Amino acid sequence: MAKKQYAVIGLGRFGTSIARRLHEAGQEVLGIDIDEESVENAEPFVTHAVVADSTEEKAITSLGIDNFDCVIVAIGDDIQSSILTAMLLKNLGIKKIIAKAIGKRHGQVLEAIGIHWIIYPERDMGERVANQLLSPNMLNYIELSKDYNIEEIILPPKMEGKNLRELNIRAKFNVSVIAILRNGEIIISPSPEELLQKDDILVTIGNRNDLAKFSRIE
Amino acid sequence: MAKKQYAVIGLGRFGTSIARRLHEAGQEVLGIDIDEESVENAEPFVTHAVVADSTEEKAITSLGIDNFDCVIVAIGDDIQSSILTAMLLKNLGIKKIIAKAIGKRHGQVLEAIGIHWIIYPERDMGERVANQLLSPNMLNYIELSKDYNIEEIILPPKMEGKNLRELNIRAKFNVSVIAILRNGEIIISPSPEELLQKDDILVTIGNRNDLAKFSRIE
Amino acid sequence: MAKKQYAVIGLGRFGTSIARRLHEAGQEVLGIDIDEESVENAEPFVTHAVVADSTEEKAITSLGIDNFDCVIVAIGDDIQSSILTAMLLKNLGIKKIIAKAIGKRHGQVLEAIGIHWIIYPERDMGERVANQLLSPNMLNYIELSKDYNIEEIILPPKMEGKNLRELNIRAKFNVSVIAILRNGEIIISPSPEELLQKDDILVTIGNRNDLAKFSRIE
Amino acid sequence: MAKKQYAVIGLGRFGTSIARRLHEAGQEVLGIDIDEESVENAEPFVTHAVVADSTEEKAITSLGIDNFDCVIVAIGDDIQSSILTAMLLKNLGIKKIIAKAIGKRHGQVLEAIGIHWIIYPERDMGERVANQLLSPNMLNYIELSKDYNIEEIILPPKMEGKNLRELNIRAKFNVSVIAILRNGEIIISPSPEELLQKDDILVTIGNRNDLAKFSRIE
Amino acid sequence: MAKKQYAVIGLGRFGTSIARRLHEAGQEVLGIDIDEESVENAEPFVTHAVVADSTEEKAITSLGIDNFDCVIVAIGDDIQSSILTAMLLKNLGIKKIIAKAIGKRHGQVLEAIGIHWIIYPERDMGERVANQLLSPNMLNYIELSKDYNIEEIILPPKMEGKNLRELNIRAKFNVSVIAILRNGEIIISPSPEELLQKDDILVTIGNRNDLAKFSRIE
Amino acid sequence: MAKKQYAVIGLGRFGTSIARRLHEAGQEVLGIDIDEESVENAEPFVTHAVVADSTEEKAITSLGIDNFDCVIVAIGDDIQSSILTAMLLKNLGIKKIIAKAIGKRHGQVLEAIGIHWIIYPERDMGERVANQLLSPNMLNYIELSKDYNIEEIILPPKMEGKNLRELNIRAKFNVSVIAILRNGEIIISPSPEELLQKDDILVTIGNRNDLAKFSRIE
Amino acid sequence: MAKKQYAVIGLGRFGTSIARRLHEAGQEVLGIDIDEESVENAEPFVTHAVVADSTEEKAITSLGIDNFDCVIVAIGDDIQSSILTAMLLKNLGIKKIIAKAIGKRHGQVLEAIGIHWIIYPERDMGERVANQLLSPNMLNYIELSKDYNIEEIILPPKMEGKNLRELNIRAKFNVSVIAILRNGEIIISPSPEELLQKDDILVTIGNRNDLAKFSRIE
Amino acid sequence: MAKKQYAVIGLGRFGTSIARRLHEAGQEVLGIDIDEESVENAEPFVTHAVVADSTEEKAITSLGIDNFDCVIVAIGDDIQSSILTAMLLKNLGIKKIIAKAIGKRHGQVLEAIGIHWIIYPERDMGERVANQLLSPNMLNYIELSKDYNIEEIILPPKMEGKNLRELNIRAKFNVSVIAILRNGEIIISPSPEELLQKDDILVTIGNRNDLAKFSRIE
Repeated sequence: MAKKQYAVIGLGRFGTSIARRLHEAGQEVLGIDIDEESVENAEPFVTHAVVADSTEEKAITSLGIDNFDCVIVAIGDDIQSSILTAMLLKNLGIKKIIAKAIGKRHGQVLEAIGIHWIIYPERDMGERVANQLLSPNMLNYIELSKDYNIEEIILPPKMEGKNLRELNIRAKFNVSVIAILRNGEIIISPSPEELLQKDDILVTIGNRNDLAKFSRIE
Repeated sequence: MAKKQYAVIGLGRFGTSIARRLHEAGQEVLGIDIDEESVENAEPFVTHAVVADSTEEKAITSLGIDNFDCVIVAIGDDIQSSILTAMLLKNLGIKKIIAKAIGKRHGQVLEAIGIHWIIYPERDMGERVANQLLSPNMLNYIELSKDYNIEEIILPPKMEGKNLRELNIRAKFNVSVIAILRNGEIIISPSPEELLQKDDILVTIGNRNDLAKFSRIE
Repeated sequence: MAKKQYAVIGLGRFGTSIARRLHEAGQEVLGIDIDEESVENAEPFVTHAVVADSTEEKAITSLGIDNFDCVIVAIGDDIQSSILTAMLLKNLGIKKIIAKAIGKRHGQVLEAIGIHWIIYPERDMGERVANQLLSPNMLNYIELSKDYNIEEIILPPKMEGKNLRELNIRAKFNVSVIAILRNGEIIISPSPEELLQKDDILVTIGNRNDLAKFSRIE
Repeated sequence: MAKKQYAVIGLGRFGTSIARRLHEAGQEVLGIDIDEESVENAEPFVTHAVVADSTEEKAITSLGIDNFDCVIVAIGDDIQSSILTAMLLKNLGIKKIIAKAIGKRHGQVLEAIGIHWIIYPERDMGERVANQLLSPNMLNYIELSKDYNIEEIILPPKMEGKNLRELNIRAKFNVSVIAILRNGEIIISPSPEELLQKDDILVTIGNRNDLAKFSRIE
Repeated sequence: MAKKQYAVIGLGRFGTSIARRLHEAGQEVLGIDIDEESVENAEPFVTHAVVADSTEEKAITSLGIDNFDCVIVAIGDDIQSSILTAMLLKNLGIKKIIAKAIGKRHGQVLEAIGIHWIIYPERDMGERVANQLLSPNMLNYIELSKDYNIEEIILPPKMEGKNLRELNIRAKFNVSVIAILRNGEIIISPSPEELLQKDDILVTIGNRNDLAKFSRIE
Repeated sequence: MAKKQYAVIGLGRFGTSIARRLHEAGQEVLGIDIDEESVENAEPFVTHAVVADSTEEKAITSLGIDNFDCVIVAIGDDIQSSILTAMLLKNLGIKKIIAKAIGKRHGQVLEAIGIHWIIYPERDMGERVANQLLSPNMLNYIELSKDYNIEEIILPPKMEGKNLRELNIRAKFNVSVIAILRNGEIIISPSPEELLQKDDILVTIGNRNDLAKFSRIE
Repeated sequence: MAKKQYAVIGLGRFGTSIARRLHEAGQEVLGIDIDEESVENAEPFVTHAVVADSTEEKAITSLGIDNFDCVIVAIGDDIQSSILTAMLLKNLGIKKIIAKAIGKRHGQVLEAIGIHWIIYPERDMGERVANQLLSPNMLNYIELSKDYNIEEIILPPKMEGKNLRELNIRAKFNVSVIAILRNGEIIISPSPEELLQKDDILVTIGNRNDLAKFSRIE
Repeated sequence: MAKKQYAVIGLGRFGTSIARRLHEAGQEVLGIDIDEESVENAEPFVTHAVVADSTEEKAITSLGIDNFDCVIVAIGDDIQSSILTAMLLKNLGIKKIIAKAIGKRHGQVLEAIGIHWIIYPERDMGERVANQLLSPNMLNYIELSKDYNIEEIILPPKMEGKNLRELNIRAKFNVSVIAILRNGEIIISPSPEELLQKDDILVTIGNRNDLAKFSRIE
């Protein structure tokens, strides 16, 4: 993968977390914040960190941001700065702009401006937590479509010591077991004879409702 | 699943998002915030919403929270209130307490108090966004273990019109395709003869580095 | 003219001035502001005045604003509220929305949202004042096109007591005198024999540069 | 026109707009504000820009403002500074002082001090907007006297394809057409045979009420 | 003396002190302040005390202040309110208006508005204190003219036990002794034979410089 | 008079007025304030002006104030600083301390600390104004004792053109005329034949009530 | 002991702690604070709790505090209120007034006012902590005089199993053991034969330096 | 006693008092505060004083605090900083940490983190004051156990001139007199024949209730 240039505007928790991960992956990351202390704190995790007001055109262009591959507007609580910054980046013709939105209307304005990748960290993480609370045996999941999920589910105790064939999970629950995690190892497409053990985690695919039933077996 | 009683303390974006999802799933949810406006805004999404100072023992016990199954401390920016509330809940003997942390040290204090499920929404969502930026063809992922992921990857254009057998993905990339998403439908454990089509999304399992290479095919 | 329904959001100097003029002309005008005192001050000049937060969908719809003919977003200094209100009105499908902008970028965001009549009171009035300073004999003007103006110009002293024919203004200055104001009366299309008097004001039409030269005769 | 020296005190939107227009017209303009950022922003649009407290006599005289041709007090929201500055300028014997007023009483105090050209940008621009809303076919206007206006009016559709003679506008509406704007060109004192076309704009003169009726023809 | 109606606007130390003295002298005094607590504190010392914003015409007229004999604008630190209130009172045609000024320019604006009795309490009391410090034997004084004062001066110790004739103060110091204060009694136009005693206070009249010399005898 | 050293702490209107008067009289005056701007403004009126926190012992002693003849605590609104400063000066053994008090209790605390010359500028000036309002013909006064005043009184119109003997003021009003001011000149101990003229001002001595009656003759 | 009436002004940690202890001992305690929340929090621990401004004479007398046996001024951080309250209480003739001081100068002003029992909680507790740090085996102490202390000292390990006679502490260390604490019991004036045991705490009396040496035996 | 290294974090009254006492006793004390002024004020009382944010790991380790014998967290009102600092010190493995707590819950969190010596200065000093108020003859005390105290008690007047034997205090009150303070001297284990004198202070040991009765003899 070619090295890319990223700018992260807004170096709060969210922006710093993005910047750090990109930087660890060897990318060139410019961090920008209007607050000096935030910039200092982020310095170890980015290629360059500068104090600048991202709503000022001069500030943005003097940093050469108009030539960057991707700009992330991670401005925390100041909706106005977030919107004016996004507008300015759009005017400068930047191709890939990602922006964090605080709420629905903020997100709509960003969309109207032409930002297409909009993130709601608090809302989305809240949903993930609620989903895990609702299915305590489910550890993690991907929403594949409106109806289908992949879910990591802790093996129900009463299935311990049995193999997949006799459990017949697909038939009984309409759920496919596509992998098993055991002691940090992965068994992909496990054989029907595989004996399930205590603390096994099943990687399953299926209809969301079917998975919900399966994950709530006690 | 039996109906449970949840209390969500702190009705900002994160708390409201949890509360709403739990409530939509038919659970009984009590929402609490010290700020009247936040409580009003959350009212449509919870069973009951009350204004209360969660650091006051009287306030908490008069709401009967000591009998709840699970309490989520979703207090936004006020680290002090978050910690004192968690301490109080712990004193009251509540079994399941989940808390949001702003930063590392905040998280450590919560752990010292005995809170074991701690969430960092901004940091975690930042990492998810960075991972997706790094693998633009990867749409979503689960970390199964230190080394293994499941990832949803957009079919590389040059594989369009070919079947899995001739592509021989497992041999070439050490990656297993466990499902295909096509027009909102899921094909689980696709047959080796399955012809891949434009806009197919491959659900893959494998070592993280192998998946990274696979997802960056252009 | 049929009576129409107008809503003016933001009852500062600008909003109140619009509301009052519309109301004096017999229109139905609803005035809205988030600040109670502003609402009270505007009450004599509108049909109804209410305290409401225009960024709240409930507030807006419960006032029936979605059925109004025209909404003016005259919010003063709070760019964020101005933008979120405009976004909400657009979502509600209101046909005619007029908005005040503080600066260029604010105006661009409003345009991106789909607001097409945007007003910059301070900037526009500043330009009018500067134009009048530059041509001290010019009292008022309309810009007809990029090149042509109508201007009210005080009669240069040395033209007093002469008639239009002998002055031959059109030939000498390439400027047409289309009316004369004298003691509060108007002489439209004055005859070439009309004797010009002290304190006459000439209503002239012509190329901007020609008018500028004419208006600076001392 | 001889070059003049202008000072603009208060470099908000209004002051900067005046300063910029005067400067573009080749005048020497000194911009003054108590706020450093405002001064910096105005720098490209003035001859000199300085940070100074205009209520301090030393500050004003050390800038030589007592020798300027004209001083514009464009101070934004601080009525006290506006009044004290105007008082000081008056004391220094400056001949031409123009001041922005926020409201009626502010204007009266400025008048009492002896300032005779007082501007109310928000109120005046609000009136212009309201007038245009009331006569949607009217694009712009000058108030010639208490009773008479010049107005630019979009040609009513049912008059398209007719000439001025047959329409007999002066007789029917008591309104004179003194010019026609067509595709950016101006036809001054159009002949009675002139065929009116779609999108023509008529420059009309007449009694305000007559013009109002004419402009509302649908 | 007929009873008069006074209004005191601004019930800080200065306003309350005026109001209290007038009220003690049997006058009808209306006290007004925008701050509720100040009004409550002043209540015992005035005929009526009301909370009102004196810059609001409605507030002033509804209190009937336009019919009062005299209005004192004793507004403390808010120059803007002081000026706008004075302007309003002037507009309402009140005959006698007295106003407190904070500084020179504030005083000039009040004069421009047409207020002719303007008081600077801090400045004037400061001067009185300094004068007394400079002449420690001088207890009190009136400035009769540019050159002449009446002063109360403690008898210099070396004059004790002598009479006025032998001291010959008028000849030696050009100062006239017009009265003597002794044990709380007054001796007006004392006889030349009057023996002066320890702790006598001389009431003297004369040229300021002569008095200064006399008062500094040790 | 020997030159003395004064320190004025608190350079608001009151402190600056004292400092300026002392300095004009040739005394050495050190001005002190915690606020830099106040110090700058006072600089032209004092021998030295310094920024210092007068509640800090080090600050006070490093300025050598413990050797000054007299210190004036003219601190404006901060009662706490006023009291702590006075306490510190007392501890340092300064002989002559003068302090401004805001209110009665503040004054009592200063007295308890041992400050014996306490000034209430707003209250005292308020009383002077009220007294003058109550006796509009009285221009100025000294309180000689509990009962006796000296007052400057405008000559009542009906006494114009008469001499003191025929008017017999002492007999009729129990008031002595000790001087007459006429056109800026003073006539001390006027003769009984002196003809009184329009605009004469009588300097009178007498019992307060008698003077009040005399000054209200219309 | 007869029941007494106490008022505690200032219901922070310090005031509430005093009030609670007095109330538990059966005394009548009136708690006063200017802050409503503090009053509510203190309510369970006092006889009556009221919101009042203790610097207002009316407030204090209407509560009848002038008849109380003892008033504690426990006002937290507001030195000005503390001083003005103390002054007022002194004026009202209250016999026993105790006041908390923040610092040295604050304490001096309170003394000047005539308050003789002044407490510095932070300073005094700081000294206690430091003393215990310096003598880690010393658990608690009373300062009997400038030279003598009573101290509780943990038995040095090497003295375990020996009796007082053979240890001969008085002779060797010039320290008297007046009691022994063992398992929550007290042995007063222990016999010389008493065998000392692990974890015994010796209550000792002696010269401070001698005790310090004794307590540092390891 | 070997010299030790102490760090005191938070240089308010409490922290400075600890630091000063330790420093006077010859220990090496590092004072730390986030506020520059507090650091300056503490400088004379510590070995070194530095401005640093104690919640920042870098700040703490660069000062070498991880090698100190004892750290006192004396942070005043900022509970959050107090907790985060304590957490950080714990992480760094510091053996002896002492912390000041504002209230009960704050104390509990500090305990959860593993801080075992927690001080509540306001609460503890409040209790001491209340105890002394309750027993006005008792001057000082140590709590030996749940039931037993040592107390310094002023000799009840009616015991003056008698000896201990005839008074028979132990029998009558169940209280032992272990020492007498007289004129600054101490009589340890006084003989039964010792004549008690006016102003003697008895050092007594006994059950708390018995001592209370004894100390209230009038």
